Amino acid sequence: MKVTPYEVQGEIDYDKLIKEFGTKPITDELLERIKKHTGELHEVLRRKIFFSHRDLDLILNEYERGNKFVLYTGRKPSDNVHIGHLLVWKFTKFLQDKFNVELYFQMTDDEEFLFKKRSLEEANKFAYENALDVIACGFDPKKTKIIIDTEYIKTMYPIALKVAKHLTLSTSKAVFGFKNDNNVGQVFFTCMQSVPALLPSVLKGEPTQVLIPHAIDQDPHFRITRDIAPKLGFPKPASIHSIFLPGLKEGGKMSASDPMSAIFVTDTPEQIKKKIMNAFSGGRETTEEHKKLGGNPDIDIPFQYLRIFFEPDDVKLKKIYDDYKAGKILSGEMKQICLEKAIEFIEDHQKKREGSRKVVDKFILRD
Amino acid sequence: MKVTPYEVQGEIDYDKLIKEFGTKPITDELLERIKKHTGELHEVLRRKIFFSHRDLDLILNEYERGNKFVLYTGRKPSDNVHIGHLLVWKFTKFLQDKFNVELYFQMTDDEEFLFKKRSLEEANKFAYENALDVIACGFDPKKTKIIIDTEYIKTMYPIALKVAKHLTLSTSKAVFGFKNDNNVGQVFFTCMQSVPALLPSVLKGEPTQVLIPHAIDQDPHFRITRDIAPKLGFPKPASIHSIFLPGLKEGGKMSASDPMSAIFVTDTPEQIKKKIMNAFSGGRETTEEHKKLGGNPDIDIPFQYLRIFFEPDDVKLKKIYDDYKAGKILSGEMKQICLEKAIEFIEDHQKKREGSRKVVDKFILRD
Repeated sequence: MKVTPYEVQGEIDYDKLIKEFGTKPITDELLERIKKHTGELHEVLRRKIFFSHRDLDLILNEYERGNKFVLYTGRKPSDNVHIGHLLVWKFTKFLQDKFNVELYFQMTDDEEFLFKKRSLEEANKFAYENALDVIACGFDPKKTKIIIDTEYIKTMYPIALKVAKHLTLSTSKAVFGFKNDNNVGQVFFTCMQSVPALLPSVLKGEPTQVLIPHAIDQDPHFRITRDIAPKLGFPKPASIHSIFLPGLKEGGKMSASDPMSAIFVTDTPEQIKKKIMNAFSGGRETTEEHKKLGGNPDIDIPFQYLRIFFEPDDVKLKKIYDDYKAGKILSGEMKQICLEKAIEFIEDHQKKREGSRKVVDKFILRD
Repeated sequence: MKVTPYEVQGEIDYDKLIKEFGTKPITDELLERIKKHTGELHEVLRRKIFFSHRDLDLILNEYERGNKFVLYTGRKPSDNVHIGHLLVWKFTKFLQDKFNVELYFQMTDDEEFLFKKRSLEEANKFAYENALDVIACGFDPKKTKIIIDTEYIKTMYPIALKVAKHLTLSTSKAVFGFKNDNNVGQVFFTCMQSVPALLPSVLKGEPTQVLIPHAIDQDPHFRITRDIAPKLGFPKPASIHSIFLPGLKEGGKMSASDPMSAIFVTDTPEQIKKKIMNAFSGGRETTEEHKKLGGNPDIDIPFQYLRIFFEPDDVKLKKIYDDYKAGKILSGEMKQICLEKAIEFIEDHQKKREGSRKVVDKFILRD
């Protein structure tokens, strides 16, 4: 198992990741504390899809003392926004609503350029395109600022330099697995990803707590931020970590080169249908066998997509789970349930996405 | 002998440096070509104080075809501007006047911060202070733009990223001698120093030749720029290299920690007097011996300062040289000649420097 922001390999054991990364599991006690403020728990909390954290308890302590935190999450802009990204963003929107807090959303067009075969101009264009998907999640325009690195660099660069001065080459290499043939921009980049975690303190002129919802593979960036922040007089950012959304194929791997492995926000209903109908199933070889022995929802990708993303209702989800296990729902039927939810969601998202074009400029933070 | 932008060690053999760096000596033929355009040759050319170049002949070819070049030089801003810096700047001013060309002057406040025990805020303040010394050299405000890295970063960052993508960690380490305990900002920084060499092409929207006058220790930065520029569709920058101004002490070493080793632009006449009177002399032990055997102007630091900086008149300089060698000028007299020139120069510079405060804003390029 290898998990860095730039490479995820092997079978993911999330309990092991918690130990390796030194994060903490989200306990039922912590969920109860959150519930006091949110009223209800988002399904990704109830289902431990956000399963790990750093200092979320401290964030709640401060919040309960009347000190609001600021949310920060982000995206390496590209042409492949999929359900897995929306998973984090929609949960972030929930946190913004329930805690009534600001969000800084970072579009790392510099990172996309430095790490991918992509021109900087294309990466920047995708930052604007992806911003539509972010805004479509329903963030409050008064409380949400989207940062595009190359366009907010005058504010960010001095902060990035201060991080850089505390980050040795050997640490950057060790944390991200960089080698001598990596480019010098890649080695420097994590300093830019640290900036939004420190920016609220800079802009407000006082130490400001930041909470970063993100998929667990991004943790190495924020380990560095947490190490350096106190040296610069800033609080360590807290974080809350999601699992990865599994890919649609066998083994649950998502592959950047295989569009069949993920549902993208730009997919047509026909594309979604083709993908879900071909998704890896936990059903039996034959209908007869399935009816007799039942399916395995725990490895069934359409069921997992319902659990992780498409079906917020726990009661309905449990019934689907039980019925599948009992052989009352066939694999094709499970796919159909998932498909209907997926098409409904994506069509709604695409409408909201187009509606966002008019307001995108209100969200972009510029020097 | 070790010469990098960050470390100069050992006895400097300039002929060997030309071979090691792969530059070309400035030949008499090249000087004749320059003279066709400048009318007279600046003494630093006549005396081979600017002794080496890259592609200066190509710059002249293009110039003769009617294609103007742009000058670029710079400074890591700090509190120690001395005669050695002015040597390059005053020659750059000569080139600007004679060829009627633009100059981009880069103040690398980011570099000063990343490489020195200095806050970024102090480094930025010194950028403004040092700009006064640059302007005092008499550059044409209509043709001269001063870039302070942190303040022009929005324009520079995309270009720096494009350089970074072509620069591996191993090259940066090999060229500058960086180790794993260097910080990641230091490893990235050279990309920023490349930017002004490419900027004229970006701003003008067409390939534009750039000529960089600089002390030879900065060559490693521009070797990298020259390697990468064509990959980005830009012309390779040309350069013209000066020797180092020797320090005032024995062995001609300048030491950052010893203010007695250099004449700073902020020195008082008393300080200058003390420094020159204590400078390393090529005179004999006793006056009698000196009168009989003569002194050695080639190792006499006050004479070298006259040759390199303070005495533009070749006839006068030769007479001082010959008279010192013949024992007709004593060591104390040589120091007195140098001292008078130095005080006159520094007092004049300080007046011009203060006068520059009113106009500094006209020179600063901002995003």
